[in-house]
Amino acid sequence: LAFSKLTSLLVPWVDFISNHVHKHGNFLSGEDSFSFCAHTKTTTNCSLDRSSLPSRVARRYCNDQNIAVVPQGGNTGLVGGSIPVQDEVVMSLARMQEIVGLDEVSGIFTVQAGCILETANLWLNDRGFMMPYDLGAKGSCTVGGNVATNAGGLQLVRYGSLRSKVVGLEVVLADGTVLDLQSHVRKDNTGYDLKQLFIGSEGSLGVITSVILEVPIKPKVKNVMLLGVETYDAAQQVLAKARREFCGEIVSACEYWDRTCLERVMHVFPTLRDPLTRPCPFYLLIETAGSNADHDYAKLETLMEYAFGEEGDGIGVIDGILAQDEAQGQTLWAIREGIPVALKDGGGCMYKYDISLPIHALDKTVQVRHEWRCG
Amino acid sequence: LAFSKLTSLLVPWVDFISNHVHKHGNFLSGEDSFSFCAHTKTTTNCSLDRSSLPSRVARRYCNDQNIAVVPQGGNTGLVGGSIPVQDEVVMSLARMQEIVGLDEVSGIFTVQAGCILETANLWLNDRGFMMPYDLGAKGSCTVGGNVATNAGGLQLVRYGSLRSKVVGLEVVLADGTVLDLQSHVRKDNTGYDLKQLFIGSEGSLGVITSVILEVPIKPKVKNVMLLGVETYDAAQQVLAKARREFCGEIVSACEYWDRTCLERVMHVFPTLRDPLTRPCPFYLLIETAGSNADHDYAKLETLMEYAFGEEGDGIGVIDGILAQDEAQGQTLWAIREGIPVALKDGGGCMYKYDISLPIHALDKTVQVRHEWRCG
Repeated sequence: LAFSKLTSLLVPWVDFISNHVHKHGNFLSGEDSFSFCAHTKTTTNCSLDRSSLPSRVARRYCNDQNIAVVPQGGNTGLVGGSIPVQDEVVMSLARMQEIVGLDEVSGIFTVQAGCILETANLWLNDRGFMMPYDLGAKGSCTVGGNVATNAGGLQLVRYGSLRSKVVGLEVVLADGTVLDLQSHVRKDNTGYDLKQLFIGSEGSLGVITSVILEVPIKPKVKNVMLLGVETYDAAQQVLAKARREFCGEIVSACEYWDRTCLERVMHVFPTLRDPLTRPCPFYLLIETAGSNADHDYAKLETLMEYAFGEEGDGIGVIDGILAQDEAQGQTLWAIREGIPVALKDGGGCMYKYDISLPIHALDKTVQVRHEWRCG
Repeated sequence: LAFSKLTSLLVPWVDFISNHVHKHGNFLSGEDSFSFCAHTKTTTNCSLDRSSLPSRVARRYCNDQNIAVVPQGGNTGLVGGSIPVQDEVVMSLARMQEIVGLDEVSGIFTVQAGCILETANLWLNDRGFMMPYDLGAKGSCTVGGNVATNAGGLQLVRYGSLRSKVVGLEVVLADGTVLDLQSHVRKDNTGYDLKQLFIGSEGSLGVITSVILEVPIKPKVKNVMLLGVETYDAAQQVLAKARREFCGEIVSACEYWDRTCLERVMHVFPTLRDPLTRPCPFYLLIETAGSNADHDYAKLETLMEYAFGEEGDGIGVIDGILAQDEAQGQTLWAIREGIPVALKDGGGCMYKYDISLPIHALDKTVQVRHEWRCG
């Protein structure tokens, strides 16, 4: 379908819709506020018409006319689910961004699909809650897109997958049918759970227009710790020990990188320095989140004692630091967050650690990819 | 289909299969170890042939012969999913009970569907882990049945739904096809997640033969606390406060009942006494699980101080107790666990609290049902 043909098909439709737009008060109707734009494969930016039009009619019209539709949230995904592969219509959810409400007893949060992750999170923070996942792209990715791609994120180890937090969805199918899969009950185990099909489907089965999530309580205290170790195995062992013995209930994130990453980060971001006194082959970052500052700090101190005692020495812990305040914690996180950019910009080669593999296979994979990409 | 007709249909099949049984070393093949029995609607007990036969062939044969099949795990469900509604074949998973293995770094646990929940849990306990849910029927219900019914259980508040812990399944479809939906990765977000369809489908879409779960670390310390309060609202408020302020990361279960329940329990189980010094209209049980005894106890003490301070007084906390040892904790749990039996045996009326509703609607529902059943 040529671009000129596509736009000519859309012109009568835009005219038609403009005359039939209904503004519904009820956010749940799925009828409201799609912004809409035509698109070709020659550009990845939305353009043209951004008028607000009903999604059902849009979907039905495109279906009848055999026009391909690709839904787009923040357009930050790396696997290409939001990128049109031919001349097709990009359906942007950017205008469906209403935060609908929060049940503060049960922690059930309702939001339209186009709401930016960070916006949702800040809104929840003000009420003592938080989004159950965090991504580097939080400033531009949308909640609906996160659900459509089943985004993982930095805190999966504590709060589980995003999938497990979705209690309800509203979805518009290709023919314009609105599926109301909205539950407000955390423990709903009646019948087939059809909404699961749309989570992670990258928009291929339907466009998610509204999301109901179970959101956790915002922890009062956060701590960040960085350990330098001899081997990948040592990092695994320390983490297993931490989760089993010392602070299992408060671990909220763990990240791992190697010396090459740190060196590239320091090269590209000169303000970031090696936080440890000695260079180490591998690094393990552990973040904790809890309700009592004294308790959390005491737990991490016992972990430090283990790591720098005989046992830790035996498995290969070299050095470490427990951030003394929020700023120092943020500096440690800045290293992790700088890695993708640093590897791309600084070294001329790009490999990402954002991959899902059995833990025992991860290090070997990184080595092989490193050799392959960087020679 | 008459029972005599059914058994006559099965006779040649049993003969056929007996001559073609292959014992596979690989548990994952789904070919092995179904025990199998014919069944009529006049009895709910399995009977007749219990020989071990391949499941695929069984499913395919019944499908070809138009014989209905109902899979059965521990047969403990209350909604009737495991009960045949006509003359049909009951496929028991009781012999597929092998515990296959545990990855102690990632907490990924593989088990055949017929394994008893308690057996799996005790096996994991020996290795420092636990099943992510607990049910009253744990001594007879099976892991496969739990997944097929998406069982909720007592610890949903801490560990989430069973659905969220399933990382892989093996399923045999009606025509004998084996679906290998087995992932061993906690964070697998590739493509459609088809296994979700079978979770909670009560066996209607396929028979679950093998389950891969993400299992949590067994906590080192448990505490149980019981509060007596004036109103259902007060119970909600205390729980919300506990989760937000004092001990959110360690709350592992919360249960709620009213005075009528307690009185019936004491009537039916004379060894159980009122644990509080004054009768209260409503009761709230909070269980915590953590890694540090001193920290957990201190957190619960601050909760107690709140509950018996000015604020708690204002919302209607009357009395309370923090179990001083495991035995006392078990006595508090015994009250909760005795409620279903006590209401049925002691009072001549049966209403169960095992229902899923928005929290604000629960109390009203219980009242209405109480009036309706007990007049």
